[in-house]
Amino acid sequence: MEALTDDTSALRLDQGKYAASLASILEARARIQPYAHVTPVLTCASIDAEAGRNLHFKCENFQKGGAFKFRGACNAVFSLPEETAKRGVVTHSSGNHAAAVALAAQIRGIPAHIVVPKNAPSCKIANVERYGGNIVTCEPTMESREQTAKKVQDETGSVLILPFNDGRVMSGQGTVAVEFLEQVPSLDAIFVPISGGGLTSGIALAAKALKPSIKIFAAEPMGADDAAQSKAAGKIVTLPEVNTIADGLRAFLGDLTWPVVRDLVEDVITVSESEIVTAMRMCYERLKIVVEPSAVVGLAAVLSQRFQEGPHHLNCNSIGIILSGGNIDLDALWTSINQSIR
Amino acid sequence: MEALTDDTSALRLDQGKYAASLASILEARARIQPYAHVTPVLTCASIDAEAGRNLHFKCENFQKGGAFKFRGACNAVFSLPEETAKRGVVTHSSGNHAAAVALAAQIRGIPAHIVVPKNAPSCKIANVERYGGNIVTCEPTMESREQTAKKVQDETGSVLILPFNDGRVMSGQGTVAVEFLEQVPSLDAIFVPISGGGLTSGIALAAKALKPSIKIFAAEPMGADDAAQSKAAGKIVTLPEVNTIADGLRAFLGDLTWPVVRDLVEDVITVSESEIVTAMRMCYERLKIVVEPSAVVGLAAVLSQRFQEGPHHLNCNSIGIILSGGNIDLDALWTSINQSIR
Repeated sequence: MEALTDDTSALRLDQGKYAASLASILEARARIQPYAHVTPVLTCASIDAEAGRNLHFKCENFQKGGAFKFRGACNAVFSLPEETAKRGVVTHSSGNHAAAVALAAQIRGIPAHIVVPKNAPSCKIANVERYGGNIVTCEPTMESREQTAKKVQDETGSVLILPFNDGRVMSGQGTVAVEFLEQVPSLDAIFVPISGGGLTSGIALAAKALKPSIKIFAAEPMGADDAAQSKAAGKIVTLPEVNTIADGLRAFLGDLTWPVVRDLVEDVITVSESEIVTAMRMCYERLKIVVEPSAVVGLAAVLSQRFQEGPHHLNCNSIGIILSGGNIDLDALWTSINQSIR
Repeated sequence: MEALTDDTSALRLDQGKYAASLASILEARARIQPYAHVTPVLTCASIDAEAGRNLHFKCENFQKGGAFKFRGACNAVFSLPEETAKRGVVTHSSGNHAAAVALAAQIRGIPAHIVVPKNAPSCKIANVERYGGNIVTCEPTMESREQTAKKVQDETGSVLILPFNDGRVMSGQGTVAVEFLEQVPSLDAIFVPISGGGLTSGIALAAKALKPSIKIFAAEPMGADDAAQSKAAGKIVTLPEVNTIADGLRAFLGDLTWPVVRDLVEDVITVSESEIVTAMRMCYERLKIVVEPSAVVGLAAVLSQRFQEGPHHLNCNSIGIILSGGNIDLDALWTSINQSIR
């Protein structure tokens, strides 16, 4: 890994300006190391040929629980003092964060209460149940989710672990970048899927501290482009509705993640739904890995005209792409295969 | 890796009894090293829990060309003398071997003529064409395939590279085991999908030489159980027809691979079509990787009642499973996903 001596920004970043720092990320790394996978980095000559540069894929779909979310949840759960921890943890989410909190709590041996809207897909609920999470159903509104979580907190004394707007979670997600730069020190840029900004801000804080010359790009669906709009407006923008197949990228930035995105992210690149599906196919057919739609927006962004013809592609020859998770319902595939063996 | 000193069988195996040996396999390894991937080994706690033992998955679906076949083809192509090589190579196959020969020839910069039955699926032909192979169509019979390949040989002076019954190919496939035992020295057993026996014989020769105590199990579909029948009969048995979703496992043993299977393979375990689909789902949903049906018969065998209740499961705690390839048509998945974004 490169030393921190070539620029003083590494030090400046550690002065407590943000909710996480290189120091808190390195602490998180030591804390989660016994439980989290060091995920492999894959390369593919034929995709490199199409992209015209060297791409390195950080496979967080191979992380415990099938997504990077385990890093942040594990850091939050294991940073609790013993007395607090034994009262349990609670979160309101139906996605990868919920399963990650349940798994981290199961490993620590404490209760996890997961507030889930009653219309959540059964496969997501099954993920939480597989890791021993206690499902608490609520109405499918943010208000009901928050109220129900508050009620669980009051009744059980459990600690709320938010999916991204939390320094412990941001620090856990930042461990991806520490690992990635050890595995591929040559990276000129990292492309990260952005939703609430936990992964993006953690990665930006770690990577910019370790290698100040590196560029961090966020990628998101055009149908949920709040981060791009926020960057353009210079303040957090939320949307009245979102519309994308990338079900993990429908949240908006928080007050702890936004300042990092504002200051340290080069640009937010938006991609269309068909660009997302093309990038998914590339991952399945060439890399031979299972990824969810949200995972591939970084690859879609690198391949997009907006990036290839934009001002940023120069001096970005060695690009790191975060493939954030692999939790996807493949029922259509199994139905078709089961018909073929009858 | 363990030394060769704890048993003299390592030496006996090298006496030229078979068409390949540890020596030829180590030569192959040095020859293909600049071109082939060292494929990663994955593990999964939740699959281990179901299997009741420690499973290590050797991911040849991540090999160049998407299957282990590149190892044998690359060894054969690069072992040709310069004068012979420049006249090119020929094979008759529509599967992973054809694409592997085309890719190896493309890397060496020599012509590859691939004889393909005219009813071959278009995705398989596309794989060959992607690697610059020259497609020669023939009638869909073994007789026509062999005659057409002979005609190409006569016209071009090119060298025939058979898919498995060839010492150079067996040696190349054996490199999987050398790598695997370096990555996981503790293996008690290796499970290998068997068809013509090139992969199984190469792995058995290498693994038994390096670690004489290791057990080699072959796995195949019940609908193409010629290897199991051959082991039971003590001679090569061929079948009037085969019926399985595992399109890579429809060939029969050859006179060079059979003696190794006869002498060094512990047992051949057969699995049903639904066991194959269950094992595939496990790979996609838990390991998050794309594999073809033929690739998972080793996993299906480990999970099968026949193995779990049979005599061999004792002393097999650390099991290596070869996932042989990932070339599968996922059109049903893309159709469904494309409908969802409209």
